[in-house]
Amino acid sequence: MAERLVVIGGDATGMSAASQARRRRGPDDLEIIAFERGHHTSYSACGIPYWIGGEVDGADALVARTAAEHRERGIDLRLGTEAVGIDLDRRRVRTREVAGGAESWTGFDQLVIATGAVPTRPRIPGIDADGVHGVQTLDDGEAVLRTLERGGARRAVVVGGGYIGVEMAEAMIRRGLDVTLVDRGEQPMSTLDPDMGRLVREAMEGMGIEVVSGAEVRKVLTGDDGRVRAVATEDAEYPADVVVLGLGVQPNTGLARDAGLALGEHGGLLTDLAMRVRGAEGVWAGGDCVEVLNLVSGTHQHIALGTHANKHGRVIGINIGGGYATFPGVVGTAVSKVCDVEIARTGLKESQARAAGLRFVTAVIESSSRAGYYPGAKTMTVKMLAELRTGRLLGLQIVGREGAAKRVDIGAVALTAGMTVDQMTALDLGYAPPFSPVWDPVLVAARKAADKVEAELRGH
Amino acid sequence: MAERLVVIGGDATGMSAASQARRRRGPDDLEIIAFERGHHTSYSACGIPYWIGGEVDGADALVARTAAEHRERGIDLRLGTEAVGIDLDRRRVRTREVAGGAESWTGFDQLVIATGAVPTRPRIPGIDADGVHGVQTLDDGEAVLRTLERGGARRAVVVGGGYIGVEMAEAMIRRGLDVTLVDRGEQPMSTLDPDMGRLVREAMEGMGIEVVSGAEVRKVLTGDDGRVRAVATEDAEYPADVVVLGLGVQPNTGLARDAGLALGEHGGLLTDLAMRVRGAEGVWAGGDCVEVLNLVSGTHQHIALGTHANKHGRVIGINIGGGYATFPGVVGTAVSKVCDVEIARTGLKESQARAAGLRFVTAVIESSSRAGYYPGAKTMTVKMLAELRTGRLLGLQIVGREGAAKRVDIGAVALTAGMTVDQMTALDLGYAPPFSPVWDPVLVAARKAADKVEAELRGH
Repeated sequence: MAERLVVIGGDATGMSAASQARRRRGPDDLEIIAFERGHHTSYSACGIPYWIGGEVDGADALVARTAAEHRERGIDLRLGTEAVGIDLDRRRVRTREVAGGAESWTGFDQLVIATGAVPTRPRIPGIDADGVHGVQTLDDGEAVLRTLERGGARRAVVVGGGYIGVEMAEAMIRRGLDVTLVDRGEQPMSTLDPDMGRLVREAMEGMGIEVVSGAEVRKVLTGDDGRVRAVATEDAEYPADVVVLGLGVQPNTGLARDAGLALGEHGGLLTDLAMRVRGAEGVWAGGDCVEVLNLVSGTHQHIALGTHANKHGRVIGINIGGGYATFPGVVGTAVSKVCDVEIARTGLKESQARAAGLRFVTAVIESSSRAGYYPGAKTMTVKMLAELRTGRLLGLQIVGREGAAKRVDIGAVALTAGMTVDQMTALDLGYAPPFSPVWDPVLVAARKAADKVEAELRGH
Repeated sequence: MAERLVVIGGDATGMSAASQARRRRGPDDLEIIAFERGHHTSYSACGIPYWIGGEVDGADALVARTAAEHRERGIDLRLGTEAVGIDLDRRRVRTREVAGGAESWTGFDQLVIATGAVPTRPRIPGIDADGVHGVQTLDDGEAVLRTLERGGARRAVVVGGGYIGVEMAEAMIRRGLDVTLVDRGEQPMSTLDPDMGRLVREAMEGMGIEVVSGAEVRKVLTGDDGRVRAVATEDAEYPADVVVLGLGVQPNTGLARDAGLALGEHGGLLTDLAMRVRGAEGVWAGGDCVEVLNLVSGTHQHIALGTHANKHGRVIGINIGGGYATFPGVVGTAVSKVCDVEIARTGLKESQARAAGLRFVTAVIESSSRAGYYPGAKTMTVKMLAELRTGRLLGLQIVGREGAAKRVDIGAVALTAGMTVDQMTALDLGYAPPFSPVWDPVLVAARKAADKVEAELRGH
């Protein structure tokens, strides 16, 4: 008799796992049932800001593989079906049909928990007002567009200055709105050090975005029609016809916790390298509902990113399928942009390095995306952290224009390999005038960092 | 009394070495004399095609640091002065003034040989005709421009399908000429495998460039005015008002050989990791006149690239300056473009891997520069070579549009670190829809390569 795999969650991790397992094991060997609460599968939540901004034409474009395509591949996909309980002892999952509420049990041999994350929503007055939106699901995206399209929206307030926040600020600008970004941090993009975040802030202000830092939203104010009209911090009110929440997400692990599975300090499930949930035979988890090991700090983090979710799903599916794969961890790479300003980071920022017990030097340089004389060359700022004594690369941050963001991949690979900044000065990176100065900006930063490591060793 | 450093060659390696040494040792401690045959220092030969193509405004833009700037930094720079002999026993260099011919001896304690390379010029009839040009020096660039600007030039023949060849083809197209590229190889860009070179060929043909492969130029035909009028291969004649030679370069090491220094099998000087010439105390060399160790094949190569020359100069200057630096070798990275087609390679191509005694699998995939739904996403083809059994990355080739070339840096770092393609599938590369699909094209290739390594292990 075939083994049965049950997947909870029909997005990146769940459906990648199902697809990979199916590729390796036919329906006679492995039955696959996937439950998804919503009505879409395998979609790119990361693309929602660009859809709202009008650069992507409709939600369908964001769907990588439809329900029908999954079913054609022999996956019994049940949309509109929410998992409401996991019984590990009897190896079964309780589900409820969202429309109707009918509940039933489904047994499993293997279980993949891919329940994702839920957006952080501050518990403040007015948060549920008409015109206040998260941007995590396709339904959220549709709701934002409805608010924008009913007309009259002129002013947007974006709450939160992280990736979603800056990307939604761009989307609102593209929609022709006046944009205010309200952020708790010292500078926007708190995944960067403040000196690099300041560059993002200045660039955003140059685009006409009002950036309010160090401010917490206390209240959402509504008009008589129930629609949002402003956002209030302790000190000020910011008029708003639409409010977008970009306050990050938290692992959606209530179901797992209720089933008795242990959660990490960030509320995510903890897995081993094969993505098996710790202490639960035949139970796997990945994506936004797990914590991942940061290979540089040696600590676990919660990082909600589609690229990790896809990798997790692939690893789970290969392993269930009888192959062998592991997910060793992350180095904390993330790239984003706001209009033409590219933002990238990998490894640890200063406060993270200190929290990990590391001591380090920092190097900040300005260089050019192309040979200085080549048309379109743009300045970028590169910051590098290197460990004292060993000179090991600890982190890389880049803010610039075209050609800035993906240069962070050089640092991501170097971090994975445990390279020193001195070793990095000799890296054989691609050089031609349209693509790089003769010393790539990352090499210029490595040179400066290596010099500072050496100077520290000498105790100058 | 101060030590004396003599530098032969005032371009990237020579002047980088001089500058680095000067930064670390003042004039009282180190006298620096640099001889340069020409009239320019520290210029970007790689930029010449873009200057000729009209994208760079004048030769001055290509000069990174002028003679005056070097002199201000305490370097006794003597332009128009050619080194004609090296007397290692008596530690002195014989020089001749290009204008006038006066010769003299200059003693040295430390000597840097940075004599660069000379372009390959086939010994065929008509090769010295008016209108036939190399493109290695700023003087060459001026000569090409004079030929173009005297009017009437409609047809260009570019001889050689390597980097210079394809870049000059682009320049000639930008100048409005009809372009024929005549190349000996099976496909243009013979630093790529033929299947990838074919993509370059097809793209060039799509731009209206006539690409003639497998053809050797036998003769340059001239008119009564002594100007070039056509180029003849064994089989055909190609009308030409201007001919550009892009046949590569050879190490300019006659001086070194005459001084009794040993040369490698490619005619370049051989150095140790600190860039000291083997068997010659206090003699250093770098740039286009040396051979470099390819870290993947374990063999020496001659690679004329400004980025290596600059690194060599820095290493030499640091060491002469009393610091410590090494140049461990290269992995064979090179990037280029022809109009909007980007071309990149690192590591070994198939024939190189075989020649090195390696056995391998290959994986070729097509993917997208951005999320498929994001505006401006372009297809790129990625080819990966991975060693049998170990799965170690051996080479990476990419042909595509915007965003293709610099992705090769991921492979360059991974090769340096000795990563396997399986390890690469877990690399934490930057992902956001404007910059990458959720699986970066390099990761897609790594997945396929890893699958093929696994399949080979299983013996099918």
